[in-house]
Amino acid sequence: MNFKMIKYITGQLLLAEGALMLLPLAVSLMYGEFSSIWAFIIPIAALLILGLLMVLFKPENTTLGVKEGFVTVGLSWIVLSLFGALPFVISGLIPNYLDAFFETVSGFTTTGSSILSPSDFGTPWLEGLRGIFFWRSFTNWIGGMGVLVFVLAVMPQQDMKSSRLVHVMRAEMPGPKIDKIVPTIKKTASIMYGIYIVMTLACTALLMFGGMDLYESLTTTFSAAGTGGFAIWPDSMATFGGTVASPNFCVWTLTVFMLLFAINFNLYYLIISGKVLSAIFSEELRWFLGIVISAVTIVFISNINEYTSISENLRHSAFQVSSIISTTGFATDDFNMWGNLAKTVLLIIMFIGACAGSTGGGIKVSRLVIALKSTVAEVRHMIHPRHVNVVRFEKKAVDEATRRGVFAFIITYVFIFFGSFLVISIFDAPSIETGFSSVAACINNIGPGLGEVGPASNFASLSYVSKMVLSFDMLFGRLEIFPMLLLFSPAVWFKK
Amino acid sequence: MNFKMIKYITGQLLLAEGALMLLPLAVSLMYGEFSSIWAFIIPIAALLILGLLMVLFKPENTTLGVKEGFVTVGLSWIVLSLFGALPFVISGLIPNYLDAFFETVSGFTTTGSSILSPSDFGTPWLEGLRGIFFWRSFTNWIGGMGVLVFVLAVMPQQDMKSSRLVHVMRAEMPGPKIDKIVPTIKKTASIMYGIYIVMTLACTALLMFGGMDLYESLTTTFSAAGTGGFAIWPDSMATFGGTVASPNFCVWTLTVFMLLFAINFNLYYLIISGKVLSAIFSEELRWFLGIVISAVTIVFISNINEYTSISENLRHSAFQVSSIISTTGFATDDFNMWGNLAKTVLLIIMFIGACAGSTGGGIKVSRLVIALKSTVAEVRHMIHPRHVNVVRFEKKAVDEATRRGVFAFIITYVFIFFGSFLVISIFDAPSIETGFSSVAACINNIGPGLGEVGPASNFASLSYVSKMVLSFDMLFGRLEIFPMLLLFSPAVWFKK
Repeated sequence: MNFKMIKYITGQLLLAEGALMLLPLAVSLMYGEFSSIWAFIIPIAALLILGLLMVLFKPENTTLGVKEGFVTVGLSWIVLSLFGALPFVISGLIPNYLDAFFETVSGFTTTGSSILSPSDFGTPWLEGLRGIFFWRSFTNWIGGMGVLVFVLAVMPQQDMKSSRLVHVMRAEMPGPKIDKIVPTIKKTASIMYGIYIVMTLACTALLMFGGMDLYESLTTTFSAAGTGGFAIWPDSMATFGGTVASPNFCVWTLTVFMLLFAINFNLYYLIISGKVLSAIFSEELRWFLGIVISAVTIVFISNINEYTSISENLRHSAFQVSSIISTTGFATDDFNMWGNLAKTVLLIIMFIGACAGSTGGGIKVSRLVIALKSTVAEVRHMIHPRHVNVVRFEKKAVDEATRRGVFAFIITYVFIFFGSFLVISIFDAPSIETGFSSVAACINNIGPGLGEVGPASNFASLSYVSKMVLSFDMLFGRLEIFPMLLLFSPAVWFKK
Repeated sequence: MNFKMIKYITGQLLLAEGALMLLPLAVSLMYGEFSSIWAFIIPIAALLILGLLMVLFKPENTTLGVKEGFVTVGLSWIVLSLFGALPFVISGLIPNYLDAFFETVSGFTTTGSSILSPSDFGTPWLEGLRGIFFWRSFTNWIGGMGVLVFVLAVMPQQDMKSSRLVHVMRAEMPGPKIDKIVPTIKKTASIMYGIYIVMTLACTALLMFGGMDLYESLTTTFSAAGTGGFAIWPDSMATFGGTVASPNFCVWTLTVFMLLFAINFNLYYLIISGKVLSAIFSEELRWFLGIVISAVTIVFISNINEYTSISENLRHSAFQVSSIISTTGFATDDFNMWGNLAKTVLLIIMFIGACAGSTGGGIKVSRLVIALKSTVAEVRHMIHPRHVNVVRFEKKAVDEATRRGVFAFIITYVFIFFGSFLVISIFDAPSIETGFSSVAACINNIGPGLGEVGPASNFASLSYVSKMVLSFDMLFGRLEIFPMLLLFSPAVWFKK
């Protein structure tokens, strides 16, 4: 294990986090929130000093294998959250460090589960808290694309060879396998971030057109782009504080953009490159849209008596399906009060999640399709043992390693899911609906669940053991299990 | 596909079912229930005539491949249930044929989910219904070991070679793989049935010792031995009708025997053969007992305020854990009224289920252990890609085919589970607790679920679409998915 290299990269990450925190500090200064600037200055100073110490000596051996890639990613995200929680604690918004850690992990993993109650949003609303809430939404945006790949992509060529970056990218980017859209990983990463930034700007502009001010539209877009779900309003997206000129326009804008951020970003690159048809005929995209349309239809029918007009029903149903399947977790209404059928559909699409290569969470559409096709192949193999059964996805044969990886992922996921469910039940004894959906909401990076962790509620009342279990479920979900699992494997740390 | 052979075997099965129905007919006659003897005579006549017609011409080619094995088993169980439902319809106990089909599938698959309400048990209790209720419990016993292997095992050698029987046994016997304990399958099957019968007699004798009469103890043992769960009392095992001398002795007897029937029968053969130590040190047994003890402990602690005395708490907690993990489904109390922690534990052990090679259902302990070890091996493979990772179970290396089979099983199981959950939600919109647990109770062959399908309730109020979906879930669970899946695969029936 190349510990020096892990230390060096982690140091770079701390520097990056310190730099990123300058933005909320600027917001605080702009709004004249001088009481909360120390909430940023202290962590920035700590991050810069510690970061500089760690990058002081460049390691001679810059080799980074698969193992180091996974461990670095797992470690980085924990360190990132440990420091990212400081502004919440120092500002006094979340005085308890463990609660602040939960909130920060929830932010970086783009989950959006919160321990804040409506009274925490200040009276008058956000008075003196604009910098802090900007940081909270910003964590969603940072976590959406993953910060480590970004940091490594901008590192000088001699410090980090592209070929080594692939191991980090594999661990941090969602999906069963990564596609290099251009020959080098650094270039690929730059293009991805470029698309991310352009789409973020487009969404911000549209929300401003709908009547939001710059602060509101930017923070809301941060949470939508990362498919995170932190809102600056205590009732999520239900009323937008009552001051927005065209709230329905904003709801539909977010409905569309949450789906756009849940689609594989490679497709946008294909469109830019003029390969529009290849993008449209993406197999994962068709499955994804098919599931979205089916889910909206069923939820719409289930909600037929919930709303007075068809347009109102369609708006809420489409928004909620888009919000849940993209794993954002915004809410325009308390869907926990909807009928059983609608709630069941939302619970099921929580697990499906977004497309690979997007900022969304969940098991991922491509992984489920590959799993489905692989089991069909297994059944075929039983019928005709001598036939060779090739599993095809996106017109390409899925290799054995990917199939095994998908199976191992789903099985491990199921074990972690039920293990967490059991531990939470032991420490909090929630109802089955609450307990099951709280783990589902966290491991799939959604945000709100059902029952007592529904959109009108929050995670504050859970015990600290449960909050820590759910924090790690969020990390398991965002990093797709294996980086976290490897980080805690004795086999990684001890040689036989 | 050797259709002639499939027809011939199915005919043998019909003859066997006709013969088995003579037993409840005798019970009816013994109790002088002359009004219900036609409920048996008509189906027996139909089974014998149809069966004889089907076995009239012996096929010249007795080849039976893997494909035919699976298809025969899948088809047989459906045919068995179609005819087995007739006594319920003709007697008038369950006038609707679809309801009777649900009840019969539930019986043969050893599920024990019922559509009967307390008033169906007659006033006075079982008056004129003893034959019918004997048949109902008897289906649990028949389904426990599987009837097809029995039928084929007693067929003359020239009709069915042992080497071909293995495909049928593989499809009908639970577990990730079958162990031939003696060189021939026929011999193996005979030993298994011998153990089954001896244990049935032992349990019957003990229950009579506890104060039950022969009818009560035999029917109760049938349901316990098959880990089915049909009871002749409307309140399951809560009071035994109030006439039993030592009810607590009977409860503990059933607690122990349900566990005994949930253990791999091969271990009993090892004990008979003098290899007591090998049996005791079985890896699956140790996992199973570890889970049972942990579950009883947690449920006991969760129930600390439910019962007035420790012994009462322990009796109910141990009985219920034994009943659920063995997938029997008996109840001594309405566990749906227990605390959330106890209910969550019961829900989780519903999925774990019994040991391979037992009469119990669920995913099976061995399958879960192999899945767990295989995923650990996958993680190790990520850390050390060049190391060879051997997965060991019961001190033997698990071959690649078994590992793939286990993975394919669990993934398919998850898909069928959520698909059924969705369909039931569309047609009945149950609460998430009710919908989720009704599928769990059926696919794992338990019986009662939680919420509105809890032990104090029944499945009668569901729509017929949901009842049919759950019927097939029971068959999927009992036959471990693939025979049913192959039966409905176009690839089996149509050549390319």
